[in-house]
Amino acid sequence: MIITLKKNAPADEVAKLTKAFEEKGLQVNEIKGQDFNVFGLVGDTSHLYERDILANIWVENVQRVSAPYKLANRMFHPEDTIVDVAGIKVGGNEKIVVIGGPCSVEGRDQICRIAQEVSECGADMLRGGAYKPRTSPYAFQGLGYEGILELAEAREKTGLPVVSELMSADKIDEFEANVDLVQIGARNMQNFDLLKAVGHMSKPVLLKRGMSATIEEWIMSAEYIMANGNPNVIMCERGIRTYEKYTRNTMDLAVIPIIKERTHLPIIIDPSHATGDYRLIEPLSLAAVAAGADGLIIEVHDHPSAAWSDGAQSLKPEKFQTLIEKARKVAHAIGREM
Amino acid sequence: MIITLKKNAPADEVAKLTKAFEEKGLQVNEIKGQDFNVFGLVGDTSHLYERDILANIWVENVQRVSAPYKLANRMFHPEDTIVDVAGIKVGGNEKIVVIGGPCSVEGRDQICRIAQEVSECGADMLRGGAYKPRTSPYAFQGLGYEGILELAEAREKTGLPVVSELMSADKIDEFEANVDLVQIGARNMQNFDLLKAVGHMSKPVLLKRGMSATIEEWIMSAEYIMANGNPNVIMCERGIRTYEKYTRNTMDLAVIPIIKERTHLPIIIDPSHATGDYRLIEPLSLAAVAAGADGLIIEVHDHPSAAWSDGAQSLKPEKFQTLIEKARKVAHAIGREM
Amino acid sequence: MIITLKKNAPADEVAKLTKAFEEKGLQVNEIKGQDFNVFGLVGDTSHLYERDILANIWVENVQRVSAPYKLANRMFHPEDTIVDVAGIKVGGNEKIVVIGGPCSVEGRDQICRIAQEVSECGADMLRGGAYKPRTSPYAFQGLGYEGILELAEAREKTGLPVVSELMSADKIDEFEANVDLVQIGARNMQNFDLLKAVGHMSKPVLLKRGMSATIEEWIMSAEYIMANGNPNVIMCERGIRTYEKYTRNTMDLAVIPIIKERTHLPIIIDPSHATGDYRLIEPLSLAAVAAGADGLIIEVHDHPSAAWSDGAQSLKPEKFQTLIEKARKVAHAIGREM
Amino acid sequence: MIITLKKNAPADEVAKLTKAFEEKGLQVNEIKGQDFNVFGLVGDTSHLYERDILANIWVENVQRVSAPYKLANRMFHPEDTIVDVAGIKVGGNEKIVVIGGPCSVEGRDQICRIAQEVSECGADMLRGGAYKPRTSPYAFQGLGYEGILELAEAREKTGLPVVSELMSADKIDEFEANVDLVQIGARNMQNFDLLKAVGHMSKPVLLKRGMSATIEEWIMSAEYIMANGNPNVIMCERGIRTYEKYTRNTMDLAVIPIIKERTHLPIIIDPSHATGDYRLIEPLSLAAVAAGADGLIIEVHDHPSAAWSDGAQSLKPEKFQTLIEKARKVAHAIGREM
Repeated sequence: MIITLKKNAPADEVAKLTKAFEEKGLQVNEIKGQDFNVFGLVGDTSHLYERDILANIWVENVQRVSAPYKLANRMFHPEDTIVDVAGIKVGGNEKIVVIGGPCSVEGRDQICRIAQEVSECGADMLRGGAYKPRTSPYAFQGLGYEGILELAEAREKTGLPVVSELMSADKIDEFEANVDLVQIGARNMQNFDLLKAVGHMSKPVLLKRGMSATIEEWIMSAEYIMANGNPNVIMCERGIRTYEKYTRNTMDLAVIPIIKERTHLPIIIDPSHATGDYRLIEPLSLAAVAAGADGLIIEVHDHPSAAWSDGAQSLKPEKFQTLIEKARKVAHAIGREM
Repeated sequence: MIITLKKNAPADEVAKLTKAFEEKGLQVNEIKGQDFNVFGLVGDTSHLYERDILANIWVENVQRVSAPYKLANRMFHPEDTIVDVAGIKVGGNEKIVVIGGPCSVEGRDQICRIAQEVSECGADMLRGGAYKPRTSPYAFQGLGYEGILELAEAREKTGLPVVSELMSADKIDEFEANVDLVQIGARNMQNFDLLKAVGHMSKPVLLKRGMSATIEEWIMSAEYIMANGNPNVIMCERGIRTYEKYTRNTMDLAVIPIIKERTHLPIIIDPSHATGDYRLIEPLSLAAVAAGADGLIIEVHDHPSAAWSDGAQSLKPEKFQTLIEKARKVAHAIGREM
Repeated sequence: MIITLKKNAPADEVAKLTKAFEEKGLQVNEIKGQDFNVFGLVGDTSHLYERDILANIWVENVQRVSAPYKLANRMFHPEDTIVDVAGIKVGGNEKIVVIGGPCSVEGRDQICRIAQEVSECGADMLRGGAYKPRTSPYAFQGLGYEGILELAEAREKTGLPVVSELMSADKIDEFEANVDLVQIGARNMQNFDLLKAVGHMSKPVLLKRGMSATIEEWIMSAEYIMANGNPNVIMCERGIRTYEKYTRNTMDLAVIPIIKERTHLPIIIDPSHATGDYRLIEPLSLAAVAAGADGLIIEVHDHPSAAWSDGAQSLKPEKFQTLIEKARKVAHAIGREM
Repeated sequence: MIITLKKNAPADEVAKLTKAFEEKGLQVNEIKGQDFNVFGLVGDTSHLYERDILANIWVENVQRVSAPYKLANRMFHPEDTIVDVAGIKVGGNEKIVVIGGPCSVEGRDQICRIAQEVSECGADMLRGGAYKPRTSPYAFQGLGYEGILELAEAREKTGLPVVSELMSADKIDEFEANVDLVQIGARNMQNFDLLKAVGHMSKPVLLKRGMSATIEEWIMSAEYIMANGNPNVIMCERGIRTYEKYTRNTMDLAVIPIIKERTHLPIIIDPSHATGDYRLIEPLSLAAVAAGADGLIIEVHDHPSAAWSDGAQSLKPEKFQTLIEKARKVAHAIGREM
């Protein structure tokens, strides 16, 4: 950790600060320049927090050199983590996975029918929301436990592992029993109590990036889950909020190589939420595959305009199939299977 | 609700869509232009959701005319809501309130000592975090229930009502019993299960704006609390995330007149989190008062550089006192008490 | 254009407004709802400006239905525009072009040597800055006219058409005489006098998206050039400014299908400026090709760490060659040549 | 300047880098930690550019300790700069100035009439655009030189110094002869050739912050003007572009204390462009004064709904007068005149 003091910091204040760090077992190396006065702290600084040090009025700037995450850090775990979701492997050089399904489970018939369709199109897993985070208290909030059970039924009929969003720790038993990949949504990426709770689950976790989360904050949320005992985290980019309103969000594909360089975790892309527009899903899915994504999660509905939620960003099964065929060619072009 | 169709929408698709709306009890008025084809829906559209309508491939654009919130809407509730926090009134033309205290409760002595100090400086309420949302799982997470009890003790000694952040629904009994104003933090602004839960509490709620929440999303989160039975919501601006990194966040003061025009709820400002820099707190506090804020919530610590969290944005009591004195003059200049 | 009035707009004000539009030759269609009062204007509204209408205090909202651009609009010009840059065709189903070269021309030897190298790697054009927009007045500002002449010399030696940034209208003769594709940089995207000036040039223009320009503003800047007589505009995405600081900017690939749907102009991608990090250029280049880009513009330098500017985002020639080979495979996967 | 190398940087590369800096006359101090390897460069680093150093593949991070601006820097010029605009003093503890007037000069009668009105309301200067930066090539582009002459006429009639926007260096003679304060608009904040040109003028410059400019970039643009010979720069905040669309931009008032701490230049606030909504101008003007602004620039029009541009953000003269009266009280509350 590098600490820059103000130019006019009095010698006794500098001495006091130096002593404080040394008492924490850190070695303090100083550099004096014309306009600055810099310390390098050598030792384990993982328990120091930048903002706390900034509270000293003589401190101008604090810069962390080593990343604040350990368990997710590629430096301490050089091999790729491959997450096993009920037999489907995600990450490393495994086959690129495709997760398809409706935004919301709307009933047994709907989810079983769409499950069948996405399975025939070549999907590896089925998605479907039973608990829905909706901006309005008056909007459809999901079928709840009933939806979870119907999703499990769709899995039995098709053999596809199922993915669904968990919004509250009091539903963990339901998810542990019925869901294969537990999704933490963008709005809950920093719901730290929920992160701790899924850290104790045996099921793998799909961690969506928060709407305006930095890459480091996102990795730190993965670290929460891992530090509580669950190493099976899949990162999921779903677009970030920017000034541009033509698309629902702005898809940030640079995170694919960055997550792979900084961490050992798999990363998949959600072009449905990233764009909010079914017309943009295919080109951005191909882009994600070309950039090295380990998977895609795509909303599929057989009657988008009658969907109970998010129809505008859902693909019809036939378009989903075309997308998979094209994406497979791009995957081959970069030397991966799909 | 105004719906614009694509120029080349076929007549039978238009007829189908018209019929679908009429079956929902809405009257459909059409305007045809050279380049467009527009419907106005007359009737109660509060259960329609823009994105769902956009799923129809012939729809180009959907625009809501009336706001999607009802209970928080100034239009249906013209008088100011004045929230009573253990006898302290917030909103309307009441005295502008000042809430002061440390970021975290660090122990009985610390919180009682600072409570005494902020009380002497003129604060109306005491803040202190017992459950802390920290980006890192390795950072101090707050004293928990012990901190809540110590906060209650500080209230007994000073008479100041206490404000603390609730992060999880399973702590609601603790907060109902001991806390006077229940804070929902920025990271949980769209933790809808938590919003529903505080909707059932008898205590008033301080609802912070999410890091990148639009004003409408923020009001919709207030609507969640109100629709679940709790009308006592105080809005709190704490800065939004922008590209500018000189400050921790960018304080958006335009929300003061906007929240007052669109809703009947009180609004207070948190310049500590908005800026993250103790040197900026005083000028931005004066600005907030001048713009019409109903209160300020400010971090105060008697040893900022030794604080367990967020020292960099904490004021010392003497600076807090000066701030209150200056802010009082600004309040008088715009015709309010403080 | 759809105009929503406030609920309580008095009848005489509504009549006055209606009359004003009718006097401009527009037909005014009204829809009355419970909570709203909406006008649709039928006729040519291209001379009306939303903000001007909002000045009427009884107007709540104004929404443009037809896009404010005409010449760039796909609706009025359904076929793809193919821009000819000294014989290299860009757009439509033409071969995807690759533009390579250093950030800055640093001298005759450097530019001729790198030109040779990028040509051997398979580039179609040579880039090189002679006038450099630098944040600091103390940083290297480019070689100026000397650099332009050296660039022209490199063209003679290699046959590659050359691309360079024009920052000021008083250099137009230089560029008209020596440069094949005139770049307008991000910082000048709304330097309207410069846009008008290049509108009068005979050379095609590469129009970079402004750092925080909306897609519509960007297209409107193309419209400026086209409306002044130059139809040969190539759009270039170079990343937008967001809160995320891990990358220099956030590359917005959704613009590729959007620009192609809304306009008939070619679009190329600049992953060097979008990311600012040479390690991210290859994956994001492949992504851009997969998403349908008509070209790539990439900074190449044979000694990046000795480059006079932007070395951090420059590729060495051998990496540039590998990138082209991989990108070619992706291009074939989506049915295009490169 | 602090340079962090990658953990695994080979010794010979480190030696090579050290030598390169020493050859530039810098002293290189090294700190070695477990996970890092840090250099501090002592000496004049103003000619080094962070991104250029990052081009070395063994460099992880570069951090500038001293600010990259010199002439604008408070450290080297501790006293406030007071800019004299035709006798009106701006900055320091001088009277807070108010600049009022229409967005565009629309003709002799209009500008003289409004000049008279704003003068009677208490304005210190008159604003009015003759060259207008408009997003659309089809929108009114300003009256040009005719407008400049009419503005000068309004000055003669009222005695108010005049402010107008310069968009192109070829109009400098017109402005030197007729305008008292030369405005550089947000869209041209990084039009470096224009900055250099106004650096050679004798008239003071009002430098608006770019739509998404960082504070440092904005100060660097002031530095461009100053380094070219013109020390009389007034900074002007006009809101930044964020995801929030309720207001036209988000007004960032933290810049007031920051610009005053980092530089010695005056700063004024433009709430008209910052909000785009006449209803928000008064509260945000009061906020700006309370936060320490040296002035306000406000759009005033006697018939906003008939204005040729930006009527939605213009105040009528009577509201402008009320605003000044209220702002004066706030100014007195913080110990300043207005």
